[in-house]
Amino acid sequence: MTAPNRNTLWAEILVDELVEGGVSAVCVSPGSRSTPLTVAAADHDGLTVYSHLDERSSAFFALGRSRRIEEPTALVCTSGTAAANYHPAVMEASESRVPLIALTADRPPELQDSGANQTTDQEKLYGGAVRYYRTLPEPEPTARKLRSLRVTASRAVSEAVGTPSGPVHLNVPFRKPLEPIEVEGDVPEDIDTRAPLGAAGRNGPFLRRRRGRLELSATEVSELAEELTETERGLIVCGPANRPTPERDALAALAEATGFPVLADPLSGHRFGSHTAETAICGGYDSYLDWVEWPDPAVVLRFGASPTSKVLRKYLGDSAERQYLVDPAGEFREAEFTATDHITADPTAVAESLAAAIDGSADTSYRERFVEAERAYWDHVEDACASTWFEGGVLAAVAESLPDPATCFVSNSMPVRDLDRFGRPRTGDISVLGNRGVSGIDGIASSGLGAGAATTDPLVLVLGDLAFYHDMNGLLALTRCDVDATIVLIDNDGGGIFHKLPIEQFEPPFTEQFKTPHGLDFAPTGDLYDFSFEQVGGRDEFQTAFEESIGSQGTQLLSVEFDSEQSHRFREQVHEEVSEIL
Amino acid sequence: MTAPNRNTLWAEILVDELVEGGVSAVCVSPGSRSTPLTVAAADHDGLTVYSHLDERSSAFFALGRSRRIEEPTALVCTSGTAAANYHPAVMEASESRVPLIALTADRPPELQDSGANQTTDQEKLYGGAVRYYRTLPEPEPTARKLRSLRVTASRAVSEAVGTPSGPVHLNVPFRKPLEPIEVEGDVPEDIDTRAPLGAAGRNGPFLRRRRGRLELSATEVSELAEELTETERGLIVCGPANRPTPERDALAALAEATGFPVLADPLSGHRFGSHTAETAICGGYDSYLDWVEWPDPAVVLRFGASPTSKVLRKYLGDSAERQYLVDPAGEFREAEFTATDHITADPTAVAESLAAAIDGSADTSYRERFVEAERAYWDHVEDACASTWFEGGVLAAVAESLPDPATCFVSNSMPVRDLDRFGRPRTGDISVLGNRGVSGIDGIASSGLGAGAATTDPLVLVLGDLAFYHDMNGLLALTRCDVDATIVLIDNDGGGIFHKLPIEQFEPPFTEQFKTPHGLDFAPTGDLYDFSFEQVGGRDEFQTAFEESIGSQGTQLLSVEFDSEQSHRFREQVHEEVSEIL
Repeated sequence: MTAPNRNTLWAEILVDELVEGGVSAVCVSPGSRSTPLTVAAADHDGLTVYSHLDERSSAFFALGRSRRIEEPTALVCTSGTAAANYHPAVMEASESRVPLIALTADRPPELQDSGANQTTDQEKLYGGAVRYYRTLPEPEPTARKLRSLRVTASRAVSEAVGTPSGPVHLNVPFRKPLEPIEVEGDVPEDIDTRAPLGAAGRNGPFLRRRRGRLELSATEVSELAEELTETERGLIVCGPANRPTPERDALAALAEATGFPVLADPLSGHRFGSHTAETAICGGYDSYLDWVEWPDPAVVLRFGASPTSKVLRKYLGDSAERQYLVDPAGEFREAEFTATDHITADPTAVAESLAAAIDGSADTSYRERFVEAERAYWDHVEDACASTWFEGGVLAAVAESLPDPATCFVSNSMPVRDLDRFGRPRTGDISVLGNRGVSGIDGIASSGLGAGAATTDPLVLVLGDLAFYHDMNGLLALTRCDVDATIVLIDNDGGGIFHKLPIEQFEPPFTEQFKTPHGLDFAPTGDLYDFSFEQVGGRDEFQTAFEESIGSQGTQLLSVEFDSEQSHRFREQVHEEVSEIL
Repeated sequence: MTAPNRNTLWAEILVDELVEGGVSAVCVSPGSRSTPLTVAAADHDGLTVYSHLDERSSAFFALGRSRRIEEPTALVCTSGTAAANYHPAVMEASESRVPLIALTADRPPELQDSGANQTTDQEKLYGGAVRYYRTLPEPEPTARKLRSLRVTASRAVSEAVGTPSGPVHLNVPFRKPLEPIEVEGDVPEDIDTRAPLGAAGRNGPFLRRRRGRLELSATEVSELAEELTETERGLIVCGPANRPTPERDALAALAEATGFPVLADPLSGHRFGSHTAETAICGGYDSYLDWVEWPDPAVVLRFGASPTSKVLRKYLGDSAERQYLVDPAGEFREAEFTATDHITADPTAVAESLAAAIDGSADTSYRERFVEAERAYWDHVEDACASTWFEGGVLAAVAESLPDPATCFVSNSMPVRDLDRFGRPRTGDISVLGNRGVSGIDGIASSGLGAGAATTDPLVLVLGDLAFYHDMNGLLALTRCDVDATIVLIDNDGGGIFHKLPIEQFEPPFTEQFKTPHGLDFAPTGDLYDFSFEQVGGRDEFQTAFEESIGSQGTQLLSVEFDSEQSHRFREQVHEEVSEIL
């Protein structure tokens, strides 16, 4: 490794150690101050470089990619508002534990507060939303500083994938020259960026890091096993998580051993998957838990984040005698504050050890109630979807028709709720993801395309018109980052979710300030971003178009128009009818 | 004033006091948690409500409006990433001293850290970028709390328009019900939001605020007057400012009294205006200061922010014996750190008092050198623009053809530089604005349309393709916020400014990571956002289309395509030629 000047050297080492630590992709936005980082990233064989013109979209793209494969994606931008544009995705990454490494170029310290152009205070720019933050020292080609740089880069990766995983921020000041221009004598000729930095014989990362797994003691496991099996009425609840939590096999073993049914959020990694064939995975709870008249659960074992379903959250808060929350990061993850036990340990370790400690002679009669309710519910949904074409039916059809394998990214606010209600559990190596950390509708297209770029699985992106509008810029990644997608646009001209809220009764300002119809015809976006924009009518037409899109190259956007109020009324009707069939 | 519940009451009072304090418009984005604020804003007769679906664009729209009229515009959004989307505009507002009042709805304190949906840490979300920050207490209908609320609202306005003016952030937690639903007994029947809160007889704002003006003593003024006039070679330099700084008459009087020429940044408010007829306003310095061979200035009096022209900045740093910086906020605003005197006082007061203290018998021979150079330079620019159609020629034509009055918003990174070089000083009530605080290319469309919405003056918005792409969402404001504009899109397919930098020599990564051609054809945006998109060829065609657009209703976008490298080479050629004519 040789470098024409200290900035080039500095950036090369920083980027190199990130790659050695496990970073394999970086989203770069054009800028001058970030030149050393951009050049180093583009030069590194171990990195895929995605170029994004809008830093907000860039950060969401990185978020989606990282979420899909749980590997930190790096971000590079110039100083100033560019860095502030990362803030929404950093916030989402923080709340939903997605590893990200934001590298923001900065002006050198002497230009702070000087009135210099494009200079602002970037220290702690994301506040408490990052797991780790450093403004790096000024680049200097001395052994100690370079070692410190490698250790900082290593630490950044480690914190990003730590417990909980999340975003980190390295603010990197440079002074000119920023380009890889030879500066006579700037970098000592004998400097080798690796050898003088420590003992000989290093290869791979400068610093190797290992991290243990939080495991309960054998005594704690057997106590827990006993407590769980003292009851005949137990539930397992899996909330949103970036990967199946606990892992699918471990969950299946736990469900088998306890005899508990599993209530699986569509974003939990457990609603869909091969284990659903053998395990009692329930997905209809949002529609029937407020109608059921069977005994409340006595014990609930919870994994993942707080579920999407408000019905489920309330039900758990009101009903369970004992609720065990398992979270490796020790955070409290249910806003009713009714949990009785908090288990700070690795979810898979907990599930595996409990499954091993419980003998399999579980009473399954409580589970049977759920299994029967599920059967009746999903039959009813099928009839309802066949009778009427509504927004929920789109998500039902998508869930049913997703290829195997597939990555499916669903937007807030209604699509994820409709998937929760109408997405029937099924087998298949299907990853369903959403931005459920802070549940914004910004950055959805970029997050979806980033998730799609992470693997070769077909990508399906489902979003409403407000989310589509909010991140239209993200669609540039289709061609620029070479992503193919099937995009399902549920266009009801505004914020349909507000029909669910009491504000619906207040007109004005309901329509103008809440539902906010915009009247946009999105067809021109197909010309703008070079994809096929198709207006799709009813259920059959949608089904055909969806399957054709899955089977073809390039990107097809299927736009399905609805009246949000009608869809909402039909959802309510289906929900009412469920009370009769149970 | 009556209110069905405490949240409604709380929001009504908050909004009311903001309006009493001088806020006349609010940009609202749809959301649930912010319902009380949105309802209160929509209900208030004294407020214009602009509805924006993308919070980033919303904040930039507010920024543009506030920048144009120096009145704080309020912002309302829901909790979570919505608030983070304000960050870029808040940062720009901070650095360029634009008053803004961000009202971010928040979840109540007990839901923090609970895993509740759309809940994150919003405290001090914008760090040091705001002049004032409060997370408001929980709404409660008690006299003391309501008085405190009014005082806080009053303080927020006061800090936003203070010295320096800038953004403020009120984080406003609410718990349900968020809608104006009657809650029996929640608001005491006898509560009157105004009368019991203090002495009788209040009208207008609950708290009236007056703020003094920083003025130098008579002794200081006469000392300064003497120092300035000891030399025969003095300059006045006016950098970017949101309004002419000092005021135009005061500047003209000062220039007349001192006999100094005025080097006026295109964003200073002094390049264009009626005073240019009588005052020696210079605009060609970026092209000739590095060629001139006359004596360096001995004294420079600087107003406003650091000038856009790098040539001018360097020149001042290298040449002047004494530099006086006038800034009412006491900030240092020139990154060469060569100023010798800092004057913390009101610029207009300083200019007026100095003009009065200096007798008019100034030696004007130094000024004459500038005046002659200007004459020769602008004649040359006219010839150059007639000979070759290039990006700079667009800005020359725009500057020349702006109607009177007009608001002209110019983007970073090249348009403002081209206006600096090729925008000839002229008369007319013309406001030229740009986001020169942190010089981002994000949010330009929204900022421009916000500036346009602030007055009835015709609006001209000039931006490059990267800035256009970055904030295409902002164009929705054309119809949604009822703004007409003439939009000049200088489309050179990527970041032409990078041709100015040494990175141009490094291929790769120059094209892919810096110039970043995107190949987008923006014509479909006209269909999407309902404006006329016109491809315009050469100088005459542009001139005709521009004048037609100014004279017609609705919005016309004039797209002018260039090869950025050719434009750059021609700029260099013009610059070389200037050395010969001087």
